[in-house]
Amino acid sequence: MKLKLIQYTPEPERTVAMSARLCYSASGAEELAQTMSDTQVSTLLDKLFGMGHLSTFEHVNFTFAIEGISRVLTHQLVRHRIASYSQQSQRYVSEHGFEYILPPAIAGHPEAKVKYDRLLHQIQQTYDELVSLGIHQEDARYVLANATETKIVVTMNARSLLHFFEKRCCQRAQWEIRNLANVMLAEVRSVAPRLFAKAGPTCVTGGYCPEGALSCGRLAGIKSQK
Amino acid sequence: MKLKLIQYTPEPERTVAMSARLCYSASGAEELAQTMSDTQVSTLLDKLFGMGHLSTFEHVNFTFAIEGISRVLTHQLVRHRIASYSQQSQRYVSEHGFEYILPPAIAGHPEAKVKYDRLLHQIQQTYDELVSLGIHQEDARYVLANATETKIVVTMNARSLLHFFEKRCCQRAQWEIRNLANVMLAEVRSVAPRLFAKAGPTCVTGGYCPEGALSCGRLAGIKSQK
Amino acid sequence: MKLKLIQYTPEPERTVAMSARLCYSASGAEELAQTMSDTQVSTLLDKLFGMGHLSTFEHVNFTFAIEGISRVLTHQLVRHRIASYSQQSQRYVSEHGFEYILPPAIAGHPEAKVKYDRLLHQIQQTYDELVSLGIHQEDARYVLANATETKIVVTMNARSLLHFFEKRCCQRAQWEIRNLANVMLAEVRSVAPRLFAKAGPTCVTGGYCPEGALSCGRLAGIKSQK
Amino acid sequence: MKLKLIQYTPEPERTVAMSARLCYSASGAEELAQTMSDTQVSTLLDKLFGMGHLSTFEHVNFTFAIEGISRVLTHQLVRHRIASYSQQSQRYVSEHGFEYILPPAIAGHPEAKVKYDRLLHQIQQTYDELVSLGIHQEDARYVLANATETKIVVTMNARSLLHFFEKRCCQRAQWEIRNLANVMLAEVRSVAPRLFAKAGPTCVTGGYCPEGALSCGRLAGIKSQK
Repeated sequence: MKLKLIQYTPEPERTVAMSARLCYSASGAEELAQTMSDTQVSTLLDKLFGMGHLSTFEHVNFTFAIEGISRVLTHQLVRHRIASYSQQSQRYVSEHGFEYILPPAIAGHPEAKVKYDRLLHQIQQTYDELVSLGIHQEDARYVLANATETKIVVTMNARSLLHFFEKRCCQRAQWEIRNLANVMLAEVRSVAPRLFAKAGPTCVTGGYCPEGALSCGRLAGIKSQK
Repeated sequence: MKLKLIQYTPEPERTVAMSARLCYSASGAEELAQTMSDTQVSTLLDKLFGMGHLSTFEHVNFTFAIEGISRVLTHQLVRHRIASYSQQSQRYVSEHGFEYILPPAIAGHPEAKVKYDRLLHQIQQTYDELVSLGIHQEDARYVLANATETKIVVTMNARSLLHFFEKRCCQRAQWEIRNLANVMLAEVRSVAPRLFAKAGPTCVTGGYCPEGALSCGRLAGIKSQK
Repeated sequence: MKLKLIQYTPEPERTVAMSARLCYSASGAEELAQTMSDTQVSTLLDKLFGMGHLSTFEHVNFTFAIEGISRVLTHQLVRHRIASYSQQSQRYVSEHGFEYILPPAIAGHPEAKVKYDRLLHQIQQTYDELVSLGIHQEDARYVLANATETKIVVTMNARSLLHFFEKRCCQRAQWEIRNLANVMLAEVRSVAPRLFAKAGPTCVTGGYCPEGALSCGRLAGIKSQK
Repeated sequence: MKLKLIQYTPEPERTVAMSARLCYSASGAEELAQTMSDTQVSTLLDKLFGMGHLSTFEHVNFTFAIEGISRVLTHQLVRHRIASYSQQSQRYVSEHGFEYILPPAIAGHPEAKVKYDRLLHQIQQTYDELVSLGIHQEDARYVLANATETKIVVTMNARSLLHFFEKRCCQRAQWEIRNLANVMLAEVRSVAPRLFAKAGPTCVTGGYCPEGALSCGRLAGIKSQK
């Protein structure tokens, strides 16, 4: 997987804090933005997080360019509706010689890996043959595997990202989208640490697990360490 | 493809008309609902459509159960964000002996069809073998083709459907989602004909084509018939 | 306040349960809908609620006609974005002799009530005078009070309603929207009791309060009763 | 009205163009961003606009701080749901000595203006008296007029803005929100001229008017000038 945070709203933490303060102050937004110290910004963000008042987190957006992921992942990803997506099209872009994603469980199982690689090469070959026979790539792509590599540009605001991290950094999330979520979280934390200080699954952020009997056991581990 | 309209808001046309009239009347909603004649409902809907005042069309919803479609289709479908989806999971449901979709262009090309069917059977076989080797189906599914049959429940409101029909009934839409859109349109027209009287691509509904030089030529045909 | 649930998706509980089961079953939606017993529906809904898997709750929608509420309330209400609204227009509908909402705290304070009623009558009078002077009602309405009665049609799906009830049934919500939320909850519970069995603020549904130091104390009461 | 564009996605035009090109290219996003010339960006944006392919316009966001507007305006504004808002609260912020908006039609009518100003001062006075009597400002605000000045922070992406400008720059839009829309458009045009080159009502951008018989006549004027 290759991910780059290509753009984001400048001064994300100050922008959120200023918007929040506007709601509770007689002063205007611009004045607030100029007069808030870093400490005030930080304290206010902690307070908003503590109260779950996250609507002001929507004012800052993050845009990622992501490559080297499968369509298994993107079919899950685009289900997050409060976000914007631009994905490489299998209709308009030829998949001649496409790359594919290899699940770790298969990578670690030599016999399975041989079967997997062999099949993926057969798929590549048949795709090329169909195109050679005059089948348009928009139909030839029906043979392409879920594993086929895709590229996507994703924009989410900080509130939507927090929701995404809650669901997808969870141990029970599918491995590939969980990996993506963890990389995205590391990226946004590097530019807006206070906005994402408490991001992640609820076992980490809230000390509870909504999965009940299906829980992965991480919460028990967290509690036993305290 | 197998589609069933499993639920929809009762009295959809009257519900839209009553909501619209509330905005412009001193009377209450319930009173309006009872006193509007069928002709008044019909006239008002035509007027709303004519002015593009479609927000009241959001008050009625339609729920479809759809089977016998590919994941090529659903990956496009779920990009429509003002809608709700529940899709059969390849993570939790085994794809042993799965069905698959055959594009008409391949069905009509004997040599391509042989290659297509042979590959799909190899995929089925490898999927089963991977599962037999102890690979969890959530990883084995990486070999599954875009053509694999899936099932989905979709709910959209009438305004979102109108947008969907505008984009996906277009001749330039991908054939499988266009087929679905046409079937959905026929279904909702049968229960709410006035709400969808003018549904479809803009060449049909508005006499213009946003695709410009990429146009399919249908608009020219429509104009020449007049 | 006068509220009527004017439409809703038929068989709401069965529709949600069937959609959820589709995700985890090899059977189709229609078949599932027919073969699920009431007990199976009920058990599955409890399970979904317990795990927080609420996306299938989006397939059922509820449409309310609401009268006798202020624009204080509707300005808050329409901030809930996953919903559809049609509101009586002050631009197109004359507010001659408008009704107004009286906050209980003012109703219970005779001196305040006199001032309140007197001012509201002055507003009514000035509004009429401005219109008489030829000022269009779309400008005359600038003098109208927040208290002015309005009418609105609202459609929300069950998931969005659960979120609405979590925020607005809270003791710390503003009194008028809290009253509305409680009435709405009673209405939907009467037709879909299992979908809204655990609806309400988090102190009631989850045993925790996100407001921290600002908490109303209800959670402490709930805990002390156990 | 006082408006400031306080933040926006850096390099908005290039970000949109790069996202669009990714969909139709075998190259990755980052590579595309670096290799596109200004002319290529410009040509691609024109093409996207011409075809109505605006989904990539969602990747760039604009955040405005707005003051000196009425609650008439904000009640309309917040109906645009694909946007984020933080508004000054009348529940938590005292409206002692509040400012108010004066509609031009009343400003230009001396007799109406006298009545208007007198009433607004009575409202201010009664509001203060109610608070003095111990009525909490969250209830005292029920007397406040629609004209009361408010402050708001708004974030919208470029696609949502284009929709907003289409509806609200229209001559038939209410004067105050039309003024706001025009100022917002001027602001975003100054930083991303190509994204908003064709923004505005459909008479200007598309040569047609959806209002039919209610049309303002601007379209006829545009056509007669050609």
